[in-house]
Amino acid sequence: MTVKAYGAHAADQALVSMDITRRAPGAHDVQIDIAFCGVCHSDLHTVRSEWAGTVFPCVPGHEIVGRVSALGGHVSGFKVGDLVGVGCLVDSCQHCEECDAGLENYCDNMTGTYNFPTADAPGHTLGGYAEQIVVHERYVLRVSHPEQQLAAVAPLLCAGITTYSPLRHWNVGPGKKVGIVGIGGLGHMGIKLARAMGAHVVAFTTSESKRQDAEALGAHEVVVSKDAAAMAKHASSLDLIINTVAAPHDLDAFVTLLKRDGTMTLVGVPAEPHPSPAVFNLIGKRRAIAGSMIGGIPETQEMLDFCAQHGIVADIEMIRAEDINAAYERMLKGDVKYRFVIDSATLAA
Amino acid sequence: MTVKAYGAHAADQALVSMDITRRAPGAHDVQIDIAFCGVCHSDLHTVRSEWAGTVFPCVPGHEIVGRVSALGGHVSGFKVGDLVGVGCLVDSCQHCEECDAGLENYCDNMTGTYNFPTADAPGHTLGGYAEQIVVHERYVLRVSHPEQQLAAVAPLLCAGITTYSPLRHWNVGPGKKVGIVGIGGLGHMGIKLARAMGAHVVAFTTSESKRQDAEALGAHEVVVSKDAAAMAKHASSLDLIINTVAAPHDLDAFVTLLKRDGTMTLVGVPAEPHPSPAVFNLIGKRRAIAGSMIGGIPETQEMLDFCAQHGIVADIEMIRAEDINAAYERMLKGDVKYRFVIDSATLAA
Repeated sequence: MTVKAYGAHAADQALVSMDITRRAPGAHDVQIDIAFCGVCHSDLHTVRSEWAGTVFPCVPGHEIVGRVSALGGHVSGFKVGDLVGVGCLVDSCQHCEECDAGLENYCDNMTGTYNFPTADAPGHTLGGYAEQIVVHERYVLRVSHPEQQLAAVAPLLCAGITTYSPLRHWNVGPGKKVGIVGIGGLGHMGIKLARAMGAHVVAFTTSESKRQDAEALGAHEVVVSKDAAAMAKHASSLDLIINTVAAPHDLDAFVTLLKRDGTMTLVGVPAEPHPSPAVFNLIGKRRAIAGSMIGGIPETQEMLDFCAQHGIVADIEMIRAEDINAAYERMLKGDVKYRFVIDSATLAA
Repeated sequence: MTVKAYGAHAADQALVSMDITRRAPGAHDVQIDIAFCGVCHSDLHTVRSEWAGTVFPCVPGHEIVGRVSALGGHVSGFKVGDLVGVGCLVDSCQHCEECDAGLENYCDNMTGTYNFPTADAPGHTLGGYAEQIVVHERYVLRVSHPEQQLAAVAPLLCAGITTYSPLRHWNVGPGKKVGIVGIGGLGHMGIKLARAMGAHVVAFTTSESKRQDAEALGAHEVVVSKDAAAMAKHASSLDLIINTVAAPHDLDAFVTLLKRDGTMTLVGVPAEPHPSPAVFNLIGKRRAIAGSMIGGIPETQEMLDFCAQHGIVADIEMIRAEDINAAYERMLKGDVKYRFVIDSATLAA
């Protein structure tokens, strides 16, 4: 089936309207009419080929929500009309240790929602800036939020799970003090989620102007990271830091805020390396610097259910498909609170 | 009391024989006639003021074994004649969260065995290159090895606990695959300990010539880290890596050998930073780079008991006190299998 999409034909070209083909639903497939798709910084990196290996045409988008429009014969968990989501992965090997553990995101043969090899035309996956997508039922999530929140649910599929997963993995809850570095698409979700989990939340930003916003998002404390005295007040006090900042920066300033046995988890990949972290800061308090990448399918479902239960959605700005190139430019300037979401109805315009 | 010691009067001077004063045992003190003291690379760093803040005269040594020769009135756990050890710390605040957890090594007010402020003359602690030391009973360890092994027990007090603690903290045991990077004073203990804990042990060395030695120490497999093909065979397979190499080196080559959720623990502090590790390697498998610093007193006792039970000691080369400067030069060239130990009887010569 041919559907409307928005994508780029080359790394140096703007995104334009294009027609793409979706496969007919196989026995285990769910066909989804996409209602909204969030705009992630990874979309921009990929479509501009800032990371190695972009294949064109490139249709980004992995924060997908919509409604089931058709089902394969063996699909049992969904019915036509269900509100569903698709995140960063649409396939994996389904039989390795990671897949068996529900950590398909760490499967060596995970298939990303866009720019990954696939048997479908054109040979690589095409993402959610499109009217429709067809996905194996294993990788389809149930959305239980009220329908009027659907657009704001979309960013949960990447920004939400990317912060939720490390918060859960490192056992955040009441009595824990958690730092969230960076108040953007990921960070604003990290603040909301950590707060809902019952932790004491400290938001770190380079910009005094974000203080009120961070408090409104749920931060108990906001620290401007350039203020050495303010930073020092939190020395050796944090159980976990989720560092969402992908730009190269001084990690030591945050590592020293961790308690003994604390971990700083990086969820952004900088284009250039961070300055090398000082080993002594790790050794002296048995601290760790770790990484975490999105989340597995069961945990993504858990996250969506947790968010529905706690009334959590992303803060979004809705755009039309043809606004995407301008939105990228604004995103590069940090000029978005906190996630652009494409209204898929505008793709056919 | 005045006792013979070996130490340096300045960073650019050789170690020489000197007289130092030890306090009379207080109510909770144990006076120890030192039999042997291991020679740690930290001794050299400190005595040459390669780390900030060495105070002179400097008497190094924190791998101390000997026999109790006097006791304070309130000491209950030891009697005169007992074989005992003292490691890297001789005091701590005794009332913080770390001390309460038996992790005195992470106490912010931990007093190292040498070069730390103390009320005793000359105002900073003097270490184990001496005939005698007086230590609060809390920081004195019981040695249950046979007396003829005493000299080879000495290095357990630093090299042993420095590797034992992270092996335990990260749950090494049967079914786990553990890498030990560097086969020196720390690494040779790491191999022995990880093997005794029941893990599958892979030793990593830059030198093919160390293969047989590493196998003799207990490594199931030995990998020359310059051999990319040999390294690739272990990709994403190790649960834990203990990296004992303090010289700056490419951490990524080892990080990529960790399984999902694996940790590489650094126990050596390089004088210059390591090249900055690639964030993607951490994120892609939720891996961590951590640090660990010696161990707490209860765990050090546990380690000594474990070693006695498993017949584990260090491989040592005994030296006379006056050989210490030459031993440092050999240590810098890696020309020791695997730890020099000073025979304290030679201090009075």
